[in-house]
Amino acid sequence: MLKLDVALADRAYPILIGESLLSDARTVPAYVSAQDILLVTNTTVGPLYADRVKQSLKDRRLVEVSLPDGEQHKTLENVSRVLDVLVANRYGRDSMVLALGGGVVGDLAGFAAACYQRGIAFAQLPTTLLSQVDSSVGGKTGVNHPGGKNLIGAFHQPRVVISDTATLQTLPLRELRAGLAEVIKYALVFDLDFLAWLEAHLDALLGLEPEPLAHAIHRSCELKAQVVLRDEHEQGERALLNFGHTFGHAIETATGYTQWLHGEAVAAGMLIAADLSARLGLISAPDVQRVRDLLQRAGLATPPPRIGAERARQYLSMDKKVKGGRIRLVLLEALGRARFTADYPDDALAGTLAAHFG
Amino acid sequence: MLKLDVALADRAYPILIGESLLSDARTVPAYVSAQDILLVTNTTVGPLYADRVKQSLKDRRLVEVSLPDGEQHKTLENVSRVLDVLVANRYGRDSMVLALGGGVVGDLAGFAAACYQRGIAFAQLPTTLLSQVDSSVGGKTGVNHPGGKNLIGAFHQPRVVISDTATLQTLPLRELRAGLAEVIKYALVFDLDFLAWLEAHLDALLGLEPEPLAHAIHRSCELKAQVVLRDEHEQGERALLNFGHTFGHAIETATGYTQWLHGEAVAAGMLIAADLSARLGLISAPDVQRVRDLLQRAGLATPPPRIGAERARQYLSMDKKVKGGRIRLVLLEALGRARFTADYPDDALAGTLAAHFG
Repeated sequence: MLKLDVALADRAYPILIGESLLSDARTVPAYVSAQDILLVTNTTVGPLYADRVKQSLKDRRLVEVSLPDGEQHKTLENVSRVLDVLVANRYGRDSMVLALGGGVVGDLAGFAAACYQRGIAFAQLPTTLLSQVDSSVGGKTGVNHPGGKNLIGAFHQPRVVISDTATLQTLPLRELRAGLAEVIKYALVFDLDFLAWLEAHLDALLGLEPEPLAHAIHRSCELKAQVVLRDEHEQGERALLNFGHTFGHAIETATGYTQWLHGEAVAAGMLIAADLSARLGLISAPDVQRVRDLLQRAGLATPPPRIGAERARQYLSMDKKVKGGRIRLVLLEALGRARFTADYPDDALAGTLAAHFG
Repeated sequence: MLKLDVALADRAYPILIGESLLSDARTVPAYVSAQDILLVTNTTVGPLYADRVKQSLKDRRLVEVSLPDGEQHKTLENVSRVLDVLVANRYGRDSMVLALGGGVVGDLAGFAAACYQRGIAFAQLPTTLLSQVDSSVGGKTGVNHPGGKNLIGAFHQPRVVISDTATLQTLPLRELRAGLAEVIKYALVFDLDFLAWLEAHLDALLGLEPEPLAHAIHRSCELKAQVVLRDEHEQGERALLNFGHTFGHAIETATGYTQWLHGEAVAAGMLIAADLSARLGLISAPDVQRVRDLLQRAGLATPPPRIGAERARQYLSMDKKVKGGRIRLVLLEALGRARFTADYPDDALAGTLAAHFG
């Protein structure tokens, strides 16, 4: 088992990563101290793993809420449903929400925990690669609005994150690939050595070999934690984590959150951002090719929908990163280094949008 | 104009208190810097004061949302409505929510600001005495749930609070009295001298004399700020601010939030808590009489509904202050000093509940 301590200013929490942690009768009870527990999961993950969690917490009062599976259910209505269950069971401030599932369950359950009685404890038990490397660190919780992704939410840190890599055995390959997009993102933005390690171990990761998987998750969380610790409320450097996300969100919004997985959209977005970085002379054409090759090997080379440059720009304008009308973007300065800026010629963006969305 | 700086750890904000501050063309624009503004008000206060605010911000983009008036509209559905307007107008992270009205508007609009894009700026323009002395400090925002008051919410600090005492001229007398309940609370819990000052100036306050009003609001905010600064997330001392509230919430819940004003319920709750304090030998019978006399002069002597001691206890058990099954209460150790405790004989509580609710 690998362990990473995320040492936030006023509270710290551990991330545990390892094979079959949910089946191990000691791990979950040791880190989940509350007596009253609400287990939030979905109709896909619940039947596979909820019993393991319930078994290990059989001396507690545990109520389960199972939500429909999918990004389209990450809504304020479902938050309200979770809150109703907390109220109906008269759960107090010392109760705890456990999120068992992927990013949708984690974001939604975390937001419900953030709002209930102005904040109760919650723990993440992520069962997708994406949520293991992304939602584990940063304290972002929230839901979508028909007008845009993650427009409603709160910062709320978990008490513990328990990432059982064995749960990835039941993850559809497509979702595994989508999770790798975020792993590749950390390498591209922060760590050239990790990029080389990924190029060398990509097949092992796709083959679900436990040790490389645990290392990739650990290193991703570590890189994210370093940034989040320096910038908990996303004023500056943390914005770099959104590499590929502004373009990716445009793709997801254009397609109604249903056709593209988040990681797939981010992968396409990273390639668009790399292309723009090259148009601006920040990185070379061979650099872009190296990004494209790795994404292609990971099965993440789907081109964005041809919605037209103008509509793409409209979706970009709805992004949270817009300030004073200018679209701020994360661009690569080199492989392994990025910047967040609104300082680029509009022509270059127009050219990029035309090339990818036109 | 009186000014109080609330110096929180990572952000500070001013409270401005004075006659006709909303009519003064300089004050609001000087403290509200955003270009995109959402003015949240209600159908009672909006027609009286919204134009003053709009006039002073006429160079900005301002959208107004008017909610129905009353505690029963402090719901997640109305938060959702405010969020819809923010999204529909494509307001970004640098926009600002202005809450013009009483506690319901302030709590609801503040919570919407807390959730929108995980937190945008908001300002309080409180128009009731209760919200001027209570919601101005502490950062509590949120809404009610059919299962209990303020069960859904967040901590979110305003950027500025502008308390125009002239708005109290249009406040129904009953609401003025209810606001005085909270003012009296600060005196009972923290400041014996202020209690004596209130006894001397109660008629002036009821007569809406501007200088005593401004002093009472300023001193109340100051006392609350001292506690909140020491305990921003309500772990310890801040609980003292809930003097009278646990019993008060039981009254409000029992009557469906519609018949009793919050301050009226708190006043009744304070008298119940004072009675329990006397049963425990903490304060004397003459002390209780002094509390009763002042509340009576303020028109706050309505006895609680005769719902029966058992039902009252059930409502108390739903309170957020319950920990490990014990009902924790704020009790007076003396006039001007209080403690938060679950350490009292159950008989005494039973006797108090029977006397007041039986």
